[in-house]
Amino acid sequence: MAAARRVRVRAYSSSANLGPGFDALAVAHTAFYDEVEARLEPGNGMVLVEAVYGPFASEAGGAATAVKAVEELLRITGGLEGSDVVLRVYKGVPPGKGLGSSGASAAAAVKAVALLLELDVDDTTLVEAAGRGEAAAAGQPHYDNVAASLLGGLAVVAPDAEGRIYTLSIPFKAYFTVYVPRGGVSRFKTKVMREVLPASVSLHAAARNGARAAMIAAAAAAGRLDVIGAMMLSDEIVEPARSKFVPCYSEARRVLLDAGALGVSISGAGPSLIALARGREHAEALAEELVRRCHCCDPETVKAVETAPGASRV
Amino acid sequence: MAAARRVRVRAYSSSANLGPGFDALAVAHTAFYDEVEARLEPGNGMVLVEAVYGPFASEAGGAATAVKAVEELLRITGGLEGSDVVLRVYKGVPPGKGLGSSGASAAAAVKAVALLLELDVDDTTLVEAAGRGEAAAAGQPHYDNVAASLLGGLAVVAPDAEGRIYTLSIPFKAYFTVYVPRGGVSRFKTKVMREVLPASVSLHAAARNGARAAMIAAAAAAGRLDVIGAMMLSDEIVEPARSKFVPCYSEARRVLLDAGALGVSISGAGPSLIALARGREHAEALAEELVRRCHCCDPETVKAVETAPGASRV
Repeated sequence: MAAARRVRVRAYSSSANLGPGFDALAVAHTAFYDEVEARLEPGNGMVLVEAVYGPFASEAGGAATAVKAVEELLRITGGLEGSDVVLRVYKGVPPGKGLGSSGASAAAAVKAVALLLELDVDDTTLVEAAGRGEAAAAGQPHYDNVAASLLGGLAVVAPDAEGRIYTLSIPFKAYFTVYVPRGGVSRFKTKVMREVLPASVSLHAAARNGARAAMIAAAAAAGRLDVIGAMMLSDEIVEPARSKFVPCYSEARRVLLDAGALGVSISGAGPSLIALARGREHAEALAEELVRRCHCCDPETVKAVETAPGASRV
Repeated sequence: MAAARRVRVRAYSSSANLGPGFDALAVAHTAFYDEVEARLEPGNGMVLVEAVYGPFASEAGGAATAVKAVEELLRITGGLEGSDVVLRVYKGVPPGKGLGSSGASAAAAVKAVALLLELDVDDTTLVEAAGRGEAAAAGQPHYDNVAASLLGGLAVVAPDAEGRIYTLSIPFKAYFTVYVPRGGVSRFKTKVMREVLPASVSLHAAARNGARAAMIAAAAAAGRLDVIGAMMLSDEIVEPARSKFVPCYSEARRVLLDAGALGVSISGAGPSLIALARGREHAEALAEELVRRCHCCDPETVKAVETAPGASRV
């Protein structure tokens, strides 16, 4: 056991759903990131947090999520002997904005510990551990965000008939504009935004939305940004139910589309929005247009970003 | 106008849905094919059928579908002047078996005429024309089968918010075993098999099934046959409702899975089944096992097949 060894991992923010891909799709992007540094100390198998720092250190979810995720990972892989894992958590992803904040903490934590302990684990195991860790913060596991932060690109997550999680990441390059409204952080936001959803939907709406989710995956694999954008605009189940709770949704969306955004959707459970741009400069232009023309918008941050890589050592 | 010019196009059979991809996914395969030969004759813009031949020539849907599909194509692209289009239709895909028979006829017909007339049309236009043509046979357009027969590989089809059809094909290589039960052809089979479906589904079942459809697309792009198979087995909406109407479903499925099939699903609206194999020899072995061990099975055909290319000139 090399007590001096430290592994530090960065995991990026992510936007789940992209319209019709509810609980299925999320894209990792460079808007924000968390970092977790892990080291071993003599001990008896505990997971400890030494420090939480960074712009969102005071909003405590990150540390609890990281600890829980690592505990899940150790439970799956067999635990520690004679050591504690000590974590230092940098919280750079704003919580409560629909940007996968707790997912990023969980992803960075499990990846750091897997590298530290040289664990022989596959991506799915890391996603499962991080997802269960995230459940500690969000009340239930959201595998889409953790998968995106862990694997990068466009993550697809689905359960099989027995509930086992499958995950794949489609590497693709795209530029986005992320609009983060000020205020409105609530610990129960995700829960509330789930309660506004219908309990059931027509078979045909379900089939159309499922087809659109599949089309986003196919379009990402083929690099067809125009098709991804058209699908982002076509959700007929989740986004219509949630949009009225997203401040300035209609105007922001209209401004972005008028400025040539290929697609716009609520980022996760909101209130942030994500717009798909034609390229890097276009993403910058969309950000400027939003600030200039969306009169009801109250931006905490508006950023031009790109697809992010998976959680990796820094 | 070169009256002597003829274009002959082959389009393969296909299996829609693959479990959770209802109305969204279809794979083209080499089990069967239709061919349509098109030529021009002096006339006034009619679409005529000179001959229908081949093993399923007497089951008339194919010719009507081909004519209607070409009429749709000409309506979209601007019609003919001073000519008729004359078609000869080879019906090799058995109708009423869930193998995209009318879709194959429609696909071959529109592709042949597009090549004959050197039309500058994109894939989506061909899929739309062929889909509307197929509606003449099946009562409503099934873009999944026509897209697979037209484009080859794994076809994904989805409507945008305004109902415009988008389609992409994911090229991938896989081997399947197709089981076609004897008998049971009904002109209304597809309609009946739609009527057994629930009118509405829970949001969570819809989300899970949509995620699985997206996962099949992602897995095809990544060449992950094991993941495609797991998803084929995970439909919780359509296949459970239909399976009781598919003769010998449970036993055939069990025999195929016992023999190592990665996945099994109803092919389209049935009654055929499609099983995903690990490779060419495994597909042959699955076919043999089915014949030997499925005691209630009454095969008209059991074939080891592979993913097929799109409709193209022969």
